[in-house]
This record gives sequence, C-alpha cells and structure tokens, in this order.
Amino acid sequence: MDVNEFREAAKAAIDEITDYHQNVSSQRVVSAVQPGYLRPLLPPSAPIEPEPFAAIRADLHDKIMPGITHWSSPGFMAFFPCSSSYPAAIAEMYSNAFNGAHFNWICSPAVTELETIVLDWVAQALGLPECYTSGGSTHGGGVLHGTASEALLTVMVAARDKYIAARTGHLPEGDDREDETWRLRSKLVALGSAGAHSSTKKAAQVLGVRFATVPVYEEDGFALKGEHLAKTLDELAAKGLEPFYLTTTMGTTDVCAVDDFAGIAATLQNREAGPPSSTSIRPEIFVHVDAAYAGSALLLPQNQHIARSFAHFHSFNFNPHKWMLTTFDCSATFVKSRADLITALSIKPPYLRNQFSDNELVTDYRDWQIPLGRRFRSLKLWFVLRSYGISGLQRHIQNGVSLGESLEEKLRSRPDLFAVFTPARFALVSLRVVGADGIEVNRRTEEVYERVNAAGEFYLTSTVVDGKFAIRVCLGVAAAREEHVRGVFGVLVREAEQVVMV
Amino acid sequence: MDVNEFREAAKAAIDEITDYHQNVSSQRVVSAVQPGYLRPLLPPSAPIEPEPFAAIRADLHDKIMPGITHWSSPGFMAFFPCSSSYPAAIAEMYSNAFNGAHFNWICSPAVTELETIVLDWVAQALGLPECYTSGGSTHGGGVLHGTASEALLTVMVAARDKYIAARTGHLPEGDDREDETWRLRSKLVALGSAGAHSSTKKAAQVLGVRFATVPVYEEDGFALKGEHLAKTLDELAAKGLEPFYLTTTMGTTDVCAVDDFAGIAATLQNREAGPPSSTSIRPEIFVHVDAAYAGSALLLPQNQHIARSFAHFHSFNFNPHKWMLTTFDCSATFVKSRADLITALSIKPPYLRNQFSDNELVTDYRDWQIPLGRRFRSLKLWFVLRSYGISGLQRHIQNGVSLGESLEEKLRSRPDLFAVFTPARFALVSLRVVGADGIEVNRRTEEVYERVNAAGEFYLTSTVVDGKFAIRVCLGVAAAREEHVRGVFGVLVREAEQVVMV
Repeated sequence: MDVNEFREAAKAAIDEITDYHQNVSSQRVVSAVQPGYLRPLLPPSAPIEPEPFAAIRADLHDKIMPGITHWSSPGFMAFFPCSSSYPAAIAEMYSNAFNGAHFNWICSPAVTELETIVLDWVAQALGLPECYTSGGSTHGGGVLHGTASEALLTVMVAARDKYIAARTGHLPEGDDREDETWRLRSKLVALGSAGAHSSTKKAAQVLGVRFATVPVYEEDGFALKGEHLAKTLDELAAKGLEPFYLTTTMGTTDVCAVDDFAGIAATLQNREAGPPSSTSIRPEIFVHVDAAYAGSALLLPQNQHIARSFAHFHSFNFNPHKWMLTTFDCSATFVKSRADLITALSIKPPYLRNQFSDNELVTDYRDWQIPLGRRFRSLKLWFVLRSYGISGLQRHIQNGVSLGESLEEKLRSRPDLFAVFTPARFALVSLRVVGADGIEVNRRTEEVYERVNAAGEFYLTSTVVDGKFAIRVCLGVAAAREEHVRGVFGVLVREAEQVVMV
Repeated sequence: MDVNEFREAAKAAIDEITDYHQNVSSQRVVSAVQPGYLRPLLPPSAPIEPEPFAAIRADLHDKIMPGITHWSSPGFMAFFPCSSSYPAAIAEMYSNAFNGAHFNWICSPAVTELETIVLDWVAQALGLPECYTSGGSTHGGGVLHGTASEALLTVMVAARDKYIAARTGHLPEGDDREDETWRLRSKLVALGSAGAHSSTKKAAQVLGVRFATVPVYEEDGFALKGEHLAKTLDELAAKGLEPFYLTTTMGTTDVCAVDDFAGIAATLQNREAGPPSSTSIRPEIFVHVDAAYAGSALLLPQNQHIARSFAHFHSFNFNPHKWMLTTFDCSATFVKSRADLITALSIKPPYLRNQFSDNELVTDYRDWQIPLGRRFRSLKLWFVLRSYGISGLQRHIQNGVSLGESLEEKLRSRPDLFAVFTPARFALVSLRVVGADGIEVNRRTEEVYERVNAAGEFYLTSTVVDGKFAIRVCLGVAAAREEHVRGVFGVLVREAEQVVMV
C-alpha cells in the first residue's frame, strides 16, 4: 500500500467510521453469531501474495462486523461502559503515527512529559489530595497503565516489597534476613472486600500470596466498613498471618458500592497506633483505591468530598476508558510515593542506559510499570480534556447519573413487578423481580434477564450477591438519553409482566 | 466535536500523517529537547470550557512534535525497531471504532475468533511446531499480549503453578500440602542466560521468586549452551534450590545471539531421564523462547530449521510490532498447552458469567493473560498479513538482513578503525573501535558512539558485554536502504578517524 492508496483508504475509513457511529443505535447491540462462526469464512493460512485493500475491507464488513458487539450503542447497558469519542479517535491516529516503544524519556520526551502533566491535570480535576500529583509533598504522581488489573498488580508488587523491607530492615544483610524474608512471604495476605473486583484475587494469585475477603453486608449497601475490616485483621493476626495490602473500592463492579473510606482509614490508624502483638514491627497496610469505573464521577464537585480520605491511602486508579470518553486502553494510576514503584520495579540493563536516565534528570515510566514498552496514551487524554473541557466532561457524567436516577424512579413506580436491589449510584441501578420467596425472586429475575437480552434491543448483565440474583443496568454510555431509559424500562416491564403473570 | 468536525479533522490528520511519514527521513532522529521542556509550554490545569480543535492541533505541532523521537526514520538504528505500516494504521482506526473491553467472547466474538485464526496463520508462516497452533495435538495456541515482558511474566506464572502442582500433587490436600507449597516457593529459581532480556529478572522480581543467570561466552557467540545450563542446574541442586523456568532467546537484545536450542533441549531431556537426586519428584523445567525481535526472521524459509527445537519447549513469543510492520503494541505469545495458562489465571466472578463461557463453547482470552480487558489487536495483524502477503513480509525482513550484512562487510574493510564484535545477525551488527588494549578500545568506542549520536543524523545504542563496550547498529527499520548503510558507515568512519588519530 503506497502513500496515495493509504490516503484514499484511510479517508474512506473515516467516512465508514462516522457512518458506523451514526447508525450504531439501529443495530442489534450484541452480536448474534454462533461460536466458531469465523473460521469457515477465512482461508486456512495467510496469503502468499499481497491482497488489494478492497478485498480486506469487504471482508471487514461481511465477516468481522457481524461479530462485533456494539459497546457505543445506547442500548449497551451491560458491564461498565467502555467509551470513546471523536477527539480520542483522532489522538489515536497521531499516537500511532508517532509509533515507538517509549520506555525511556529519550525514546520520545513528549510521551513522558505530557503524561506527567496531563495526569496532574486529572488529579486536580478529580479533587485528589495533593500527594497524588507529581509536584506534591510526598513525591507521588500519575502513570498510565493499560487496565485497572495491571494497575492493581503493579501497586500490589510495590506494597509487598515495601512491607517486606520494613519488616526485615532491622536484620543484618545475609542469611538471617533472607530466611526471614522467605518466612514472611508465606504469611503475607492481600485483602479485598467481598465486593472488590476479581482482579485483586487474580493479582494475589499471580504474586503467589494469600488472599482474604472482608465481608460486606446488604444493610451497609455492600460497602466495606472499618469495623468488618478490623475483625478480619484480628482473625488473620490470630493465625499468625500478615496483611500487607487492601483494595478498597469506589463503585464496586456488581452494585457500585462505595466503601466507607473514612472508617477504613480510622481503623488502620488505630491499628498502627495500638500496642504491637506478637511481632514487634507492624508496618502500615498499603491501601489502594480501585475507582476503575466510578472515579470519573469525581469530576462532579458534589462527589469530591469522597476523595478527601484518599490522603490516608497509598494509590488510586480509575479508567478514563470506562466513563471518560477516552478510547480503551487508558487506566490512570496515581501513587503517593513514586519511590514505592521504582524500588520494586526498576532494573537497569546496559542496553537501556542513556545520559538523561543516568543523571536522574527525567522520569523513566518503565520503572512505574511491569511492561517495558508503552504507547503514547496521554495524547488521547489530552485531546479529550481539551476538546470537552472539564465542563463538557461534567455534563457527560451528570447525564449518566441523572439517567440512573430516572430508571430507579421508574422501577419504584412498579412495585408490583420490581424491587430496586441497589439504588442508582454513578449511573448503575440493580434490580430484582418480585416474588413469593427468595427462590421465586431469583428464578423470575433470571428469566426476565434472559428474555431482555434475547430480544436484542438492550444488553444487560447480571450478578449474584449473597445468593441473590440481580439485573444490573448501567447508563454510562455517552449516547444514552432519557428515551433509552424509557426504552429499557418498557422492555423490562413487558418481560416481567410475562414472567410474573405465568 | 460533532460528526462533521470529526470528519474534517480526521481527514486533515490523514494528510498530516502521510506528510509526516514522507518527511521523517529529513528530520533529526532523536528529539533535541531538554528535560522538563514541556511543562512551561502548557497551562497548569485542564481548561474548563471546550477548546477548538485548531488550538489542539497547533499545540501538537508546536509543542509535542519537537519532543518526538522518530522511530520510523531510516536513521533510527537504536534498540530494536518498533515498526508500523499503512495497513496497520488503518486497522487501528477500525479497531478503535469498535472500541470495547473484549475480555470475553461475547464482548465481541470477532475479536476472539480473529485472534485465534490469525495466530494460527502466523504460527504456520513462522514454521512453528504444530503444538503451538489452536488445533494442535497438545491443545495449545496463540494469544496477543501487549509486550514481550507481559508475555514472559504470564508464562512464568503458569510455569510456577504447574511446577508446584507437580511437586505437591502426591500430598493429601490440607496443611501438609500447603506447608510444602510454601517451602517450595522459597526454593524456586527462574533462569535466564546472561544475554536474556532484563524482563526475565523483572518477572522473577514481580513474582518474588529467585533468579539465576546462566553464563554465556564470547567463543559461543554469547549463545546459551546446554553444557553451561547443565552446570548451573547442578550448582542450584547442590544448594537445594529448584529451577522451574528458563528463558531461552532467539536474538538477544545486546548482540542478537541465538541460543543453542538443540543442546538445551538435550540437556533437559537427559536431566529428566536421569536418576532423581534428593527430591523424589523432579518436574520438567518450563522453557520459554523469547524471540521478541528476531522471531519475525522465521518468516524466511532458511531460518525455519531453528524453530524445530521449539517442540521440546513450552512457549514462544515474538513482537510483530518490532520487525513485522504491526503498530505497537502487538506481542504474539504461543503456548504448547493452553491449560497451563488457564489453570493459573482463570477466575470466574458472577458478573462476568454468560452462557457461552459457562458451556465452554468459546475461548475467553482473559484467562490467557493478566489484564481483564483487551484491545482488538488481531485486526492490524490480519490487515498486515493480507496487505503484504507472506512474500512481501519476507522481502521486508530480507532487506534488513542484507543491510546488516552490507554494514558488516564495510566494517571489515576498515580493520584500521573497527573490529566487528558480533557479526550481522538478523539485521543487527555490533562493533568496537580498535585500540592498544581493552581500556583504550572501550574509551574510543564510547567516544565514537557519543559523537555519532550527537551529530543527530543517526541514532545508535550501545551495550556492555563482559566489560566490553560495543556499539549496536540495527537495520530493521522498514525505510532503511543501502544508502543509509553507506550513510551510517560514513559517519562511523568520520568519527572513528577523529578519535583514533588523536
């Protein structure tokens, strides 16, 4: 493909992509293909000779697009949204043109420096405590990872190494310290609430450390409370285990619960101030705030009080690719102390050396993450922040919040059919269908859920909390409007009436 | 930005991007900005109100582009290349339009199915043993990760869990097995040769397992040999340690050495067949082949004999984003047994459940990787394979190989100035400047290296192997031609003459 063919094909692609976005709301949301649909449609091996672009484009339309689920459709109310926008799409084009591995500052200084600056903008816009900015008093700052799972694994590594260093630093270097390090590793426990995303358990599995769940309760809105954390910590201590890390959540995946951050901070402060137990040294527990989805809602001033407690914690993460119109992948991670990451993750082989890094004049983000190479992700965040402005992003977030509240109100107008399981929080509502007992409620709710999805106009997901089956409806997609809330409510009523009447 | 503004801005971006590529060879390769250049040029916080796209674009040109290092320039001969192409750029546009988190099959069936199919195409094109294809006898297959570091960490997790399971499976479930598991973890050793990429050490650091280096020697071309592996294994066994994982390399980062795969396979087979030592169970060592850069050279039939030994190993990885014209990031990972990954990495929370996954009808690639979400990366690989055809990709790879040989020949024509440190292998040559003794050679070579980079026409990187400073010249960039080899040789001669004459 020469430069003229590219110019032509790329511009045609722009037209197709705009058409796709314009028409997406009239498509079935979820792909209707059957497992294995694609293999019979493609040849068994790559072509030897080049193929014309027209053939590739035709196959894209005929063979790939039927297998696409339309995450930008206003009928997509499943999982959490994965959002994009026109400014982000253009930024990705430039970012790909400046293609490189960008692991060091010198690999493209703009990639590193824009990331630091834009993440300071974001920290400020979300009302995060100053400790999470690059110029803050604790030498923290932000970095873009791909996903919240990677962010979480990365901070858990830092937490583990920090804890072990604090617990063994009094021993002389050598066999004693090494023996104690290995003994300790077998006692370490990573904690998450029962509502925390599965990525905490997965990270613990990857690191080969123990994982324990702190229970949450329906009467607390499934939020993690300080008192339940305290109880779990006591139980672990009684077994001789050492909790070193905790995931707290702003907006859990199943029901968008917000943990009791102030209560958690108080519990941990009491513990650190309290008398030591059998071990003479008890380092602080590293606390990570997972706000992957709901973190974007901190753009609204009325939510920023939530972030105040984060000053007591160690890291914070949210995904602009979820609810902040920035194409996947873009996961913003903030740490209170960048030294925690660098100590755990820096390795300096000779083939990566250069004068700027050697003189410590620059940030080398490879030491803030697990992969070496990195994409120019900050460009899309910069384009989005400037194209929308903070006010535009606030309107977008408020739109989702209001739609969630509207759906909740509609559900409450039909107590003969529905019970709100968890109220509208950050554009997410969860509901159950009424019934004589728990078994009937579960059965009916699952049936309504399956019927709504089978109809194809809307795509919802479900969860099971404490044995209770619930339907989740998330209205954070950028294109969602009141008409879509009316639409999904209409379908829910139609299907629930069928199921309840039977 | 509405749809019409997008259409216009995106098409203007296409023109700019083609202009950028057309003119890149006339630019200084490495950005000349100083650390901290960008912050004074940007406001201290994000704008409240939306900004017009023209303002953003102007800043992109005036403030960002001076901070870009041009990886696609034919003067970029540093590190390894990070390549792209016009077909890949168009694919990225579509992939971003179909934006989604794509962690499960149902998230967009085409994303999963195209990945499986295209990776089978790639395995076939590289001549990988059938065990690495999805339909192969060992139930293996391919998956796209972001980078080779992530691929390596992922297979190391699988290797660790597989080893522990094999070593503890004979014990009854309960405290005994758990105690033995924790004891074992403290004895596990991940191995890499002295030439292996630092990502092996970093992965071991992340997992909290020991790491040991197997020495390599100049007389072996810095390749890992079976006999040295055997010696290291014996030494570790004598200390009661348990090696569970080995990174072997096709094309090491510093000098593109190719490990002695047949010798390594023989050593490991002998060991497994040999009498057990103190431990009665000795599971096989999981062997990963890191071919991040040079793996693309398996497209050439004359290299495919190298891949035959991989049938004895467990996983193979290469980065199409390095030398196969596929925009960063795109790292192709192949495993002999997908169960190894899934056993280590699968977690099934209720909010991700769906009928297709529950019935095991489909591949859910989230269980083959550490992150949950995933980009539609296979689309660009598919576009590249079809647009170039295997024959076009072979021509591209052969071009780099031939240019490396050409540079080596030129260097050998000036024995008064240069010594070839390692000969042309996969488009990489490393060289030293002549001198009276090792100290003078190092000093002169480093001086020439710094003078070439300061001149700005070419960007080279260096390495230090066994205390020997060497300049690396990599000619794998797609735009590199014989004129650029002549160019870089001319600059090397000019600077070396200055340094040697002094």
